[in-house]
Amino acid sequence: MGRILDIESGDEDETVLVPPSNFSMVEEAIFRSSFPHPSNFPFLQTLNLRSIIYLCPEPYPHENLEFLQSHNIRLFQFGIEGKKENSSPVRNNSIMEALKVLIDVRNHPVLIHCKQGKHRTGCLVGCLRKLQNWCLSSVFEEYQRFAGAKSRIMDLTFIETFDILILRQCLYSIIYQYQGYGSKKRRLLYKDESLQKPGLTSF
Amino acid sequence: MGRILDIESGDEDETVLVPPSNFSMVEEAIFRSSFPHPSNFPFLQTLNLRSIIYLCPEPYPHENLEFLQSHNIRLFQFGIEGKKENSSPVRNNSIMEALKVLIDVRNHPVLIHCKQGKHRTGCLVGCLRKLQNWCLSSVFEEYQRFAGAKSRIMDLTFIETFDILILRQCLYSIIYQYQGYGSKKRRLLYKDESLQKPGLTSF
Repeated sequence: MGRILDIESGDEDETVLVPPSNFSMVEEAIFRSSFPHPSNFPFLQTLNLRSIIYLCPEPYPHENLEFLQSHNIRLFQFGIEGKKENSSPVRNNSIMEALKVLIDVRNHPVLIHCKQGKHRTGCLVGCLRKLQNWCLSSVFEEYQRFAGAKSRIMDLTFIETFDILILRQCLYSIIYQYQGYGSKKRRLLYKDESLQKPGLTSF
Repeated sequence: MGRILDIESGDEDETVLVPPSNFSMVEEAIFRSSFPHPSNFPFLQTLNLRSIIYLCPEPYPHENLEFLQSHNIRLFQFGIEGKKENSSPVRNNSIMEALKVLIDVRNHPVLIHCKQGKHRTGCLVGCLRKLQNWCLSSVFEEYQRFAGAKSRIMDLTFIETFDILILRQCLYSIIYQYQGYGSKKRRLLYKDESLQKPGLTSF
């Protein structure tokens, strides 16, 4: 809570904060929004992000990259096409890989965004909700709250048919291995350890 | 994260969770929703609530009270009329008192709800966002995301004219006093200590 933290520390800074449109907290340390512009950077700072999951194929703008570098935020990009012609297997694979990054607590706090924070972001959050065992009508209600009049049947079908069992099985086996290390704190991990060593989460 | 926590503990329980409609996380340990029905109770359990802020004048249903008692959840009721004829000073006073409860971390995790989770809940969350220094257009965007077609100009005006300076000043003086106790953990407190002793937050 950016502002309230300021109050706690007695800081009298009255900077008005501008969250990106369609901003919301999804879960503890997981946020979603539309594409952040420089006017949103002071707000993003209050989130103390460790990473960003970006769901578009277009390269990240220079000034956004600079913001990430100066705040030690790691960028995970999954280039999902925004058009409806997108083939399902490709999207399926990208969302699965994005989910693995999303639920890895070493990447938290994390912000998910695409362009409008409606369709691609809505699909990823919808799949996370399925993993959390939310009933499908609640998953759809949440999707529609952000997509509004631009809600797409194709996205709802994608979420409905997305198979989380594979990911869940994968998680069980990883957790089983991880617990073998005797750590008291059991955390979610994903398999590709070569990408990222534990504790090393920024550039 | 209810479901993911289950995964962490290796619990294979496949119960489908049904969040109340208009459910969302507002901030860490602050949630909002429409009126929770018994079908939502298993989901609410995953939030480990310490309190509920209920913004309607109607008495809380017996089965909801039972759920609260069996899970040691404290109920804070602020009876705000749902109709548009509601006088502004009365609503103003109720929202101010509700805000004091809301930002007191001893009451967290806390769920805010009214009937639909649109108007009264939207006003309280809107005032919290002002306290957090969000720009007004972002506050309104969030209000509208939950109110949808039922968005009310009267609510937007209420949020815009709500004076958070009084509360902020009040917080500064309380925090100043609290820091006088020499505690290393500076937390937000409100004044009416007779209502609730520190550490005693349930029935």
